[in-house]
Amino acid sequence: MSEQVLTYLKENRERQLQQLNEFLAIPSVSTDSNHKDDVVKAGYFVVNYLKEIGFKNVELHKTPGHPLVYGEWMEAEGAPTVLLYGHYDVQPADPLELWESDPFSPEIRNDRLYARGSSDDKGQTFMHLAVFEAFMKTEGRLPINVKVCIEGEEEIGSKHLYETLQEKKDLFQADFAMISDSGMVEKGQPTILYGLKGFTGLEVTVTGPNRDLHSGIYGGAAKNPAMALSHMVASLKNLDEQVSVPGFYDDVEELSDEERRLMNEAPGEVYEKSIGIPEVTPEAGYTAKEHTMARPTLEINGMYSGYQGEGTKTIIPSTAVAKITCRLVPGQEPDRIQKLITDHLYKVAPKGVRVEVKPEPLSARAYKVDPGHELLQKAARSYSDAFDKEAVFVRLGGSIPVVEMIDQLFEIPVVLLGFGTPEDNLHSPNESFPLENFDKGMEVLVHYLQEVARG
Amino acid sequence: MSEQVLTYLKENRERQLQQLNEFLAIPSVSTDSNHKDDVVKAGYFVVNYLKEIGFKNVELHKTPGHPLVYGEWMEAEGAPTVLLYGHYDVQPADPLELWESDPFSPEIRNDRLYARGSSDDKGQTFMHLAVFEAFMKTEGRLPINVKVCIEGEEEIGSKHLYETLQEKKDLFQADFAMISDSGMVEKGQPTILYGLKGFTGLEVTVTGPNRDLHSGIYGGAAKNPAMALSHMVASLKNLDEQVSVPGFYDDVEELSDEERRLMNEAPGEVYEKSIGIPEVTPEAGYTAKEHTMARPTLEINGMYSGYQGEGTKTIIPSTAVAKITCRLVPGQEPDRIQKLITDHLYKVAPKGVRVEVKPEPLSARAYKVDPGHELLQKAARSYSDAFDKEAVFVRLGGSIPVVEMIDQLFEIPVVLLGFGTPEDNLHSPNESFPLENFDKGMEVLVHYLQEVARG
Repeated sequence: MSEQVLTYLKENRERQLQQLNEFLAIPSVSTDSNHKDDVVKAGYFVVNYLKEIGFKNVELHKTPGHPLVYGEWMEAEGAPTVLLYGHYDVQPADPLELWESDPFSPEIRNDRLYARGSSDDKGQTFMHLAVFEAFMKTEGRLPINVKVCIEGEEEIGSKHLYETLQEKKDLFQADFAMISDSGMVEKGQPTILYGLKGFTGLEVTVTGPNRDLHSGIYGGAAKNPAMALSHMVASLKNLDEQVSVPGFYDDVEELSDEERRLMNEAPGEVYEKSIGIPEVTPEAGYTAKEHTMARPTLEINGMYSGYQGEGTKTIIPSTAVAKITCRLVPGQEPDRIQKLITDHLYKVAPKGVRVEVKPEPLSARAYKVDPGHELLQKAARSYSDAFDKEAVFVRLGGSIPVVEMIDQLFEIPVVLLGFGTPEDNLHSPNESFPLENFDKGMEVLVHYLQEVARG
Repeated sequence: MSEQVLTYLKENRERQLQQLNEFLAIPSVSTDSNHKDDVVKAGYFVVNYLKEIGFKNVELHKTPGHPLVYGEWMEAEGAPTVLLYGHYDVQPADPLELWESDPFSPEIRNDRLYARGSSDDKGQTFMHLAVFEAFMKTEGRLPINVKVCIEGEEEIGSKHLYETLQEKKDLFQADFAMISDSGMVEKGQPTILYGLKGFTGLEVTVTGPNRDLHSGIYGGAAKNPAMALSHMVASLKNLDEQVSVPGFYDDVEELSDEERRLMNEAPGEVYEKSIGIPEVTPEAGYTAKEHTMARPTLEINGMYSGYQGEGTKTIIPSTAVAKITCRLVPGQEPDRIQKLITDHLYKVAPKGVRVEVKPEPLSARAYKVDPGHELLQKAARSYSDAFDKEAVFVRLGGSIPVVEMIDQLFEIPVVLLGFGTPEDNLHSPNESFPLENFDKGMEVLVHYLQEVARG
């Protein structure tokens, strides 16, 4: 049965690639108001595609920002319903001079499709549309019910997605969600992403004297805010990478031996080479893979105080600032962690300075599905069939806000079917996507929809 | 005998003030090459003044930068020889719009003379010249032998002074030096400054990954350079303001009870009010006056890493930098202290980062004369006579490089006869000098030259 669908994809490959190129040629840069109409145009590309292949209720939903596309095919009686999420907006292409070909004139070189959005996320979103087309044009139906939600604001923080999903909760309700907006740990290695980290942050400002002071005249009277801040932030984490804030680890789920095995088996970067560090320094008792994927982190993202120019300026700075964010794991409540760190900073603030902690308003809970969940096991088998290699199961140190939104609103599993590779240059010049993953990825999707339908 | 000289000063006050105004009207900004000729012009003002009152061998000595003035009167057989140091260059006047009157059109308001250089240092230098004139015009001689060295590069670090003094060491050799380029602890309070701090510095750079990293993907693998640097600099000084670098205090002269008494008796700022800090935080076991005047300090002058803009950017920064300087006290060798801190920083550098310490090339030893030294006691008496108040003895947390140069080259005591006040706005808009100190200060100098001559 799948043969017919796969054959259709092979026979229509050039035409579908051509359509993807038209999609990629629209400079739908959501952050740039000059491209407002282009974002809408990319939305209509999706609308038209869905209508053309037989989706119903296809509509460009207005929001106070860029619109989002809804469409559905709900005729698979008795079968589960999936919510497909994707996005048709892209990052800016600057700096343009670093691109080897025009970011909005797609070009194939070395079996990769070069264009802004080829991987993130027009390319991966298009693969789903193309697979739906193949089913509709060959079998006249989809294996399961499908609702589609493709937005135009992912690259600017999905500003209005939550409102829309909340307002029209019944419309978007499904049994599980499916997203292809991530990647594989390496090219050719099927990868099941079953967990994401949460997020919280804050900014701490230490103020000493009311102006920068002569260090000779006032050194010994005024506490140095940069020194005070250094002591304060050093008290947040020890050199074994253990967060020293009381209560920080209270609700952290312990990693099972099985999970640790899965993570350590997954191929990954040789950090010493890829980012040029002398050695990795994970939390004591954990490997770098375990820490990056599944242990919480606390990082200084920025820090500044006093004179930053050439040479010496002998001052006691008036203020010192540190920007701090945490990546959280399942069990940790972002608000509670933010409060623990805030309280700790106020508590360790030394005499002679004033401390102000400003909470970062954005936050997210961590997300995790049991890697043994049937929907993930089916995904793993679909990947293995197409790529002829066993899938690895990993968690991601980063956050994908939409996953937390869907989890929170609909309480359904989110299956992350990522086809990107580490070489895709997301958000950078010369973004590209390997054609092998375009072909095999669609094969995965065909298998997966059928696997899910099989029950 | 001094009556005649003092009367001369009173009778010639308006004319001498007029001459000072001419001196102040020359915009001799040494850092600005547009004012190169003005600096020379100010030098010639001094040359002409000295020639006019009968000094010998008066000359504008060329240097690769701005010239310096030499002159002498050496006919006081058997009397000691003093080297008078001063400078005729000034700081820039920017920002001009903050001046209430033109910085180079001297104006008297509220018994203060407003002009750039009125206090630092044309005004104070001129007072010596005027006193020399008074002696020469009334008694036909000076009480002691005088060599004069007035330079034009003080505000740009006395770039060529050391070379000149070294090359012509015999010419400038004297029994003691006299400098009026500092101030009194408060207006009306005779102040004997008998010690200055030394100086050393360095810049430490911590490098982690070869670029800013995504904190989600790499948090847990890469050591955060800002966190590493915070731990490193926090290990330099504890919250009791004690420097934790081994050996730092090895050669520090202990303060005698008598010195502590002298310092604590001196009037001083109420720091909570003057610089707006919640409380002073001196080194444990010392008062803020003792620490600022006579205990060594270690300060972070600047520190920076990663993102400094609005909001949040979730990165692990590639590098972190701290600029650190120390003020040193007698006994501490700047090079040794620099090496101790450098060695300590390398020693505490955590795994996973690379550390580079760059030494600051400028340094200075601390300077101190025994407050009981006869030349200082005579100065104290001269102040008391003129101001009708007992002098206080203080040390300064800052450095005056020329004092260390003279100390090192000639090994003679340096008597600092400062007449400025904390309200003079040195290096700032609306610099001014109190006329009371112009009058009484010259009285001090008359007394002092006679006291020294008395032997």
